[in-house]
Amino acid sequence: MERRDLVIIGAGPAGLAAGIYGARSGLKTIVLEERLPGGMMTEAPLIENYPGFSKVAGMELAERMAKQCKDAGAEIRQMERAERIELNGEEKIVHTSKTKYSAPAVIVATGSAHRKLGVPGEEKFLGKGVSYCATCDGPLFRGKNVLVVGGGNSAVVSALHLSELASSVTLVHRRDKLRADVALAEKLRGRVNVIWNSIVEEIQGSLGKKRVILTNRKTGERSEIEVDGVFVLIGEEPRSELARRAGVKTDEAGYIVVDRKQHTSIEGIYAAGDVTNFPIKQVGAAVGQGITAALEAYSYIRGLT
Amino acid sequence: MERRDLVIIGAGPAGLAAGIYGARSGLKTIVLEERLPGGMMTEAPLIENYPGFSKVAGMELAERMAKQCKDAGAEIRQMERAERIELNGEEKIVHTSKTKYSAPAVIVATGSAHRKLGVPGEEKFLGKGVSYCATCDGPLFRGKNVLVVGGGNSAVVSALHLSELASSVTLVHRRDKLRADVALAEKLRGRVNVIWNSIVEEIQGSLGKKRVILTNRKTGERSEIEVDGVFVLIGEEPRSELARRAGVKTDEAGYIVVDRKQHTSIEGIYAAGDVTNFPIKQVGAAVGQGITAALEAYSYIRGLT
Repeated sequence: MERRDLVIIGAGPAGLAAGIYGARSGLKTIVLEERLPGGMMTEAPLIENYPGFSKVAGMELAERMAKQCKDAGAEIRQMERAERIELNGEEKIVHTSKTKYSAPAVIVATGSAHRKLGVPGEEKFLGKGVSYCATCDGPLFRGKNVLVVGGGNSAVVSALHLSELASSVTLVHRRDKLRADVALAEKLRGRVNVIWNSIVEEIQGSLGKKRVILTNRKTGERSEIEVDGVFVLIGEEPRSELARRAGVKTDEAGYIVVDRKQHTSIEGIYAAGDVTNFPIKQVGAAVGQGITAALEAYSYIRGLT
Repeated sequence: MERRDLVIIGAGPAGLAAGIYGARSGLKTIVLEERLPGGMMTEAPLIENYPGFSKVAGMELAERMAKQCKDAGAEIRQMERAERIELNGEEKIVHTSKTKYSAPAVIVATGSAHRKLGVPGEEKFLGKGVSYCATCDGPLFRGKNVLVVGGGNSAVVSALHLSELASSVTLVHRRDKLRADVALAEKLRGRVNVIWNSIVEEIQGSLGKKRVILTNRKTGERSEIEVDGVFVLIGEEPRSELARRAGVKTDEAGYIVVDRKQHTSIEGIYAAGDVTNFPIKQVGAAVGQGITAALEAYSYIRGLT
């Protein structure tokens, strides 16, 4: 069992911001990350709306925050998966794939996972033509034809990014209007074909070519489109199971319920970023929440509340 | 009268973040600033805790955010003072030192002012040994001797925080009892020297060492103390008068009361950053609040709520 003051689970923008503030406050701070630091930032080809950076690759911003967190004195343990939070009186024991950590305070910043279409063919072709990350897999479709499913910022940013690589990009959206920012949506013109009011019914085909079956929700008409790859960008699901199993309250959609100071229903457990029920999912908002959670944890640990 | 979608008052981190998001959402956005953009960031010689920048001069971060805000399509009008918010049905009319703007939504991000000692040397050494923020500047005094002026919670929390970094911390308080919570005050014992009943008369010295002249208010005795840094934590004053005169609800200390989505008591008026009653006053937190306020204003203006 290793002792710490503060255990942060997840090294996305919320977790890294919390790590910076925890360590700078003098807390013995560890950040656990089951993959590599950065969270969803690592999937963004270009971030233009994090204040301070007009244009920055998500991977670069992730690396900068991770380095800053380590320089501040926090440990980041990557490729180490948190598996259980055990409550032992006021102590929290975090069991991971490698060891156990005991600390008076835990910040859950586990983020969210990509929502799936749930249609035939999606799982079968996962990693073989079906992707949830344009930054990661876009280069595999250079000079090919791709379909993007979704209508929010992440779908539009991804479609624009893919339009620089693929020979054609088609966006399928279930409504007649995008949810994405106007400034972004306007950039689609001349670069991306949009199929409105349509949903994906099935993904057929072979390892190479895919045939995607669509239905128009207004007319009921079915159509097919042939592409090489399908990028599904229809939203996120909170990765809150770890916290929920420890007794932390979540809402109907599974997001961790927090107050505006990032307290959860359990004293000494805080949550920040996309895993919480705060409706705005932005890097800059996650950072603010991570900072708040760390400063609240600091007050709690030091008995200053 | 000039028409806009969104008027943001104040160009500190909250206002600039709101400007970036407002403009990127397609809103005709103006940011009014009575001085130059940057707000309190411009006072910080070095910011080490804004995620993404290990070390950045406050002025540089301010300039980067201001440029990004303009590049996104927002106008920033500096040296233009907002003087009154007039409510005209659902329209808000902002009267400034130069003209009038009419808009359905206003974000108040006017920040706060540090209460100052008002003694010789204080202004001269601002950013050169005199600071108003222990979280921001504490790490610059690792292993050094510092003086904290004040007796409330922020002074005591700052003194305790500094005691983990500095080699010695002395607290000077004008009375014989702290205003801070007892539980907090008790923690000072053995970690922080307290000089009671004393006020700072003057800060002398050089760029490095400071000589602080004190007077005991009971005995009239003068004394000197040599330190490397002086932290003045005698309170903040929210710059909320403009909003309060428009009928926006403030708390006893004058801070604008907001919910976690930055709504004030008046529909269509939002507030973000240090002017609000949110207790954490950090650049990264202000940015998150500005983003939230802008996205909420967008939903309100576009009737998406």
